[in-house]
Amino acid sequence: MHVGIIMGSTSDWPTMKHAADMLDRFGIQYETKVVSAHRTPQLLAEYASSAAERGLKVIIAGAGGAAHLPGMAAAFTSLPVLGVPVQSKALKGIDSLLSIVQMPKGVAVGTLAIGDAGAANAGLLATQILATHDAELMKKIDQFRQQQTDTVLSQPDPSELSL
Amino acid sequence: MHVGIIMGSTSDWPTMKHAADMLDRFGIQYETKVVSAHRTPQLLAEYASSAAERGLKVIIAGAGGAAHLPGMAAAFTSLPVLGVPVQSKALKGIDSLLSIVQMPKGVAVGTLAIGDAGAANAGLLATQILATHDAELMKKIDQFRQQQTDTVLSQPDPSELSL
Amino acid sequence: MHVGIIMGSTSDWPTMKHAADMLDRFGIQYETKVVSAHRTPQLLAEYASSAAERGLKVIIAGAGGAAHLPGMAAAFTSLPVLGVPVQSKALKGIDSLLSIVQMPKGVAVGTLAIGDAGAANAGLLATQILATHDAELMKKIDQFRQQQTDTVLSQPDPSELSL
Amino acid sequence: MHVGIIMGSTSDWPTMKHAADMLDRFGIQYETKVVSAHRTPQLLAEYASSAAERGLKVIIAGAGGAAHLPGMAAAFTSLPVLGVPVQSKALKGIDSLLSIVQMPKGVAVGTLAIGDAGAANAGLLATQILATHDAELMKKIDQFRQQQTDTVLSQPDPSELSL
Amino acid sequence: MHVGIIMGSTSDWPTMKHAADMLDRFGIQYETKVVSAHRTPQLLAEYASSAAERGLKVIIAGAGGAAHLPGMAAAFTSLPVLGVPVQSKALKGIDSLLSIVQMPKGVAVGTLAIGDAGAANAGLLATQILATHDAELMKKIDQFRQQQTDTVLSQPDPSELSL
Amino acid sequence: MHVGIIMGSTSDWPTMKHAADMLDRFGIQYETKVVSAHRTPQLLAEYASSAAERGLKVIIAGAGGAAHLPGMAAAFTSLPVLGVPVQSKALKGIDSLLSIVQMPKGVAVGTLAIGDAGAANAGLLATQILATHDAELMKKIDQFRQQQTDTVLSQPDPSELSL
Amino acid sequence: MHVGIIMGSTSDWPTMKHAADMLDRFGIQYETKVVSAHRTPQLLAEYASSAAERGLKVIIAGAGGAAHLPGMAAAFTSLPVLGVPVQSKALKGIDSLLSIVQMPKGVAVGTLAIGDAGAANAGLLATQILATHDAELMKKIDQFRQQQTDTVLSQPDPSELSL
Amino acid sequence: MHVGIIMGSTSDWPTMKHAADMLDRFGIQYETKVVSAHRTPQLLAEYASSAAERGLKVIIAGAGGAAHLPGMAAAFTSLPVLGVPVQSKALKGIDSLLSIVQMPKGVAVGTLAIGDAGAANAGLLATQILATHDAELMKKIDQFRQQQTDTVLSQPDPSELSL
Repeated sequence: MHVGIIMGSTSDWPTMKHAADMLDRFGIQYETKVVSAHRTPQLLAEYASSAAERGLKVIIAGAGGAAHLPGMAAAFTSLPVLGVPVQSKALKGIDSLLSIVQMPKGVAVGTLAIGDAGAANAGLLATQILATHDAELMKKIDQFRQQQTDTVLSQPDPSELSL
Repeated sequence: MHVGIIMGSTSDWPTMKHAADMLDRFGIQYETKVVSAHRTPQLLAEYASSAAERGLKVIIAGAGGAAHLPGMAAAFTSLPVLGVPVQSKALKGIDSLLSIVQMPKGVAVGTLAIGDAGAANAGLLATQILATHDAELMKKIDQFRQQQTDTVLSQPDPSELSL
Repeated sequence: MHVGIIMGSTSDWPTMKHAADMLDRFGIQYETKVVSAHRTPQLLAEYASSAAERGLKVIIAGAGGAAHLPGMAAAFTSLPVLGVPVQSKALKGIDSLLSIVQMPKGVAVGTLAIGDAGAANAGLLATQILATHDAELMKKIDQFRQQQTDTVLSQPDPSELSL
Repeated sequence: MHVGIIMGSTSDWPTMKHAADMLDRFGIQYETKVVSAHRTPQLLAEYASSAAERGLKVIIAGAGGAAHLPGMAAAFTSLPVLGVPVQSKALKGIDSLLSIVQMPKGVAVGTLAIGDAGAANAGLLATQILATHDAELMKKIDQFRQQQTDTVLSQPDPSELSL
Repeated sequence: MHVGIIMGSTSDWPTMKHAADMLDRFGIQYETKVVSAHRTPQLLAEYASSAAERGLKVIIAGAGGAAHLPGMAAAFTSLPVLGVPVQSKALKGIDSLLSIVQMPKGVAVGTLAIGDAGAANAGLLATQILATHDAELMKKIDQFRQQQTDTVLSQPDPSELSL
Repeated sequence: MHVGIIMGSTSDWPTMKHAADMLDRFGIQYETKVVSAHRTPQLLAEYASSAAERGLKVIIAGAGGAAHLPGMAAAFTSLPVLGVPVQSKALKGIDSLLSIVQMPKGVAVGTLAIGDAGAANAGLLATQILATHDAELMKKIDQFRQQQTDTVLSQPDPSELSL
Repeated sequence: MHVGIIMGSTSDWPTMKHAADMLDRFGIQYETKVVSAHRTPQLLAEYASSAAERGLKVIIAGAGGAAHLPGMAAAFTSLPVLGVPVQSKALKGIDSLLSIVQMPKGVAVGTLAIGDAGAANAGLLATQILATHDAELMKKIDQFRQQQTDTVLSQPDPSELSL
Repeated sequence: MHVGIIMGSTSDWPTMKHAADMLDRFGIQYETKVVSAHRTPQLLAEYASSAAERGLKVIIAGAGGAAHLPGMAAAFTSLPVLGVPVQSKALKGIDSLLSIVQMPKGVAVGTLAIGDAGAANAGLLATQILATHDAELMKKIDQFRQQQTDTVLSQPDPSELSL
């Protein structure tokens, strides 16, 4: 297990699954777990405190609203923590985003975009982090990026699309 | 000690002092302490977990930016927790407000206004909570409210003010 | 009756019912009533002014848009007032939130999250306030919190969920 | 007295004075008074309820933050109420604006811009309302508007201004 | 005709109809017309310039997005102009609101809430303006307000509502 | 080809098609192409760098979220670049708008409204730019504008519309 | 005269001067004038209606708050209109930006950034528009852009800067 | 050199210096450079494309307003890119934040808080990334975190502070 994906509730899974899918694409081993900053703070403390010794290299945490999970995970570990703002019902994730990104000096959370794209990119950024010391993996990312480029290059002229 | 006032940094004290001043006015005993959700999560866990048995009745927590202190205090205690959004530099406290108020179902923070007025009102609301079971104290609040009313009633006609 | 739940319109009830449900869970007696700050200001004055002598300990007020109900209830009583921002149609409750939380120094409203979660937490916070002087009730809250924790702890690994 | 100018605190006077100045310019008689929705709700009820019989035709109310004064004045009178959002410290008046303008169906507040310009325009709009039944006054407004036009027309070419 | 209701497009009518309905309720004569600030600026100039001499007392203007109609109507008349921010697609009317309310000193628009409630209240406020010099009409408004109050007073206890 | 319409993904086409439709209306020749700032930066560099020598006069670029396409196109060409903020899922295009419009001094993007109307207006503004040196085309725009005016002038009285 | 720079007040000149400075740099002839949408709507109508026949090719309009000047100029001419949101006091120009950019389909304003950078870029974009049919001028822009590039390339290593 | 710190202008250095200071504290070798997405796009392409082969492991990019630098750096490299939203003049960095964080799926930027704290945390997160494969460095981070904890623990009781 190199990456831990945590979320406050199973209702965050449809978003956070995009992080898992991205890691799958690169063959990265990961674990997924429901950990709530507010309802299981002790579990969060244990999970994050022990993450490094359990072999994790990166933690991805997704949360919505007063989204404390990423920041509190970061408070308990020196591993890189990536935060995914889950889209909230009323405020559409701007609350989640600000709660995650506006961390004080000394405890960092690398924050991604609100919602599915952000979750996918958290998986990608975790892979990029692992690849800083794994040339093979870096090559795979280069290929993934090249495929993305190729996909765009092969797009039809939009004016030929029927709507 | 009936009320604990906590804040993430001494730089929050100029704001949070307004909570202490309000408690002083009602003769409520309180303690003040720097506790950081992100830099001393263990201390926060201990502080909040033991608050009830140490005799505290209410916790007032002030924080700015990704303001996790009030919500995490609430995660570790069943006592009422009141949150004060400290005005942040870039976003003027809208980040602090959303991070404090948008708590998920099951862990509550009673949130006050951004800045000094919010801190003073946290002190007042803590007093009101204590007064729900202290008729003497409730009378004092009634008097305070009456004094406030009298102060407004005795205001001069604004058009007679020189600017 | 220990808690009064008021709202400006029956259309707020689907939100405010979550406050009542939470109080029910703890066996707290409460009353519910439609009181409009703008359409029945006299009723509001009477309701809030007489709340303490009628035995209420806490008032929960829900409102949307230019949400004046919680603040005006607070203006007429020394009891703790908790405010629930009801999600508004155009601005999704950010107007309700700011209208409720940004109270001036001297009249406090403990504000909860926008919508259902906020209403449920208003019920919870009212219970916590009552529990500051009721050890039995405090134990019930501890149990409720423990159940919440247990529920999270028993969640399946999200990756085993089908979407 | 045809117009009543009310505000929650003498600290709002530097803003609200612009309403008075505008009324002075048209020779409209007005009164100014500190009335607080939260600290003197009874006074507000009396002031607004009796406004029509005391001969007032329009009420101008200025307030900041959770700005309840204009809406609550409107709750107690059938006279037109104009609201001026006073610029607040943290949120710069966006809270004041939303608290004043987002009134529910059935109780209206005609809202002006945040700050000094809004206060001046409240004075102007009150004058326009009076002028709907005072041809002489309407002529004065036409002249004022013409003077404004003339002032702009006589502006120098900006490129000749030294900065 | 005492009131003119204008809007930039027939697509604004479902909102602005609420203003007409309110005027109907009070027996106020009004006209409705599509006038676009951007597509028929000359018509707008003529409409607003001639409004007073055609006997109009108040203009109600509804618009969405970069909502220039109310402000430009106000630029061409000394009559009171009331503005209704129509809910826009992307930004939900916050753009409409700011474009209407933030008028510069010297040209005023009395702004109502975003959407249907705002339109209804524009009709009500126009009626209130007419009533400042029509005691009969003022009585009708008092009655309408009393009916509103009675409706709220006769609401059932919300907890008896089935959802 | 006088105008190039580019977008980051075919999913932007339903919006950007409105730009093409407007150009079609004026008989302006244009090309449409999927070019992604993030996934095909090299293609973007080539596309924009060579645009002038390929005969393009104006580039229209649509993008959503962290919408870098218009600004980066502008970085690679001295041709006028018009930006269309595509409505994003969570934040409804306010992110797209700010990412496009807040360009630093020295590299300009003429930004239009969020969504379909903005795309249509990008097509119109491109036509207006071409028409600055094409009297025939300018006449066509005058006619289009006159038709728009006529359409509004021929609108029925809204109160005769059934809803 | 190829470009007209208009603004609602001489107080906008410190911002709009940046547009003039940019045009000066390219030797573009321009005129500057105070024209107010709200205070001199007739002048605006005349100015914009006659702009094309007076030889103007582009209009740059700057305004703050409920910034109607650019959109109303666009309503009266088929020339390209560029809008500069002037930073407003309370809302820092977000009101100006939304009032200018959110134009309805059929009347376009190419909007630049809030404040000085936006004004400078309006001057630059106007120049780019003129250059679409002036190869000499296009070369000058290429040179300006190259100079900008060279300036950045010649920046010292920031770590050698003293603060 | 393990980390590259880039920024669009030397005016961003007072913010970005905090990233450099943090790296200095951990003895991480880094380079700093002015690279502008808009004014030196070619340099940016070269810088980011060659970063991996030049031995860089992480890129930190700071930018304000329409902050394209971090996202465009990410477009040209498979290395992890961390983005720092520099506080902008009018909108206080909310534009910078949204422009940086709202990246589309497939190209990620780990975003930190607006301003100095964000820059410092970018330095810290870069160090954490390097430490995922450097046990010695991870220990240093643990010590730094412990020192931070100790600093908070040794804070005086705030109520003893003079203001």
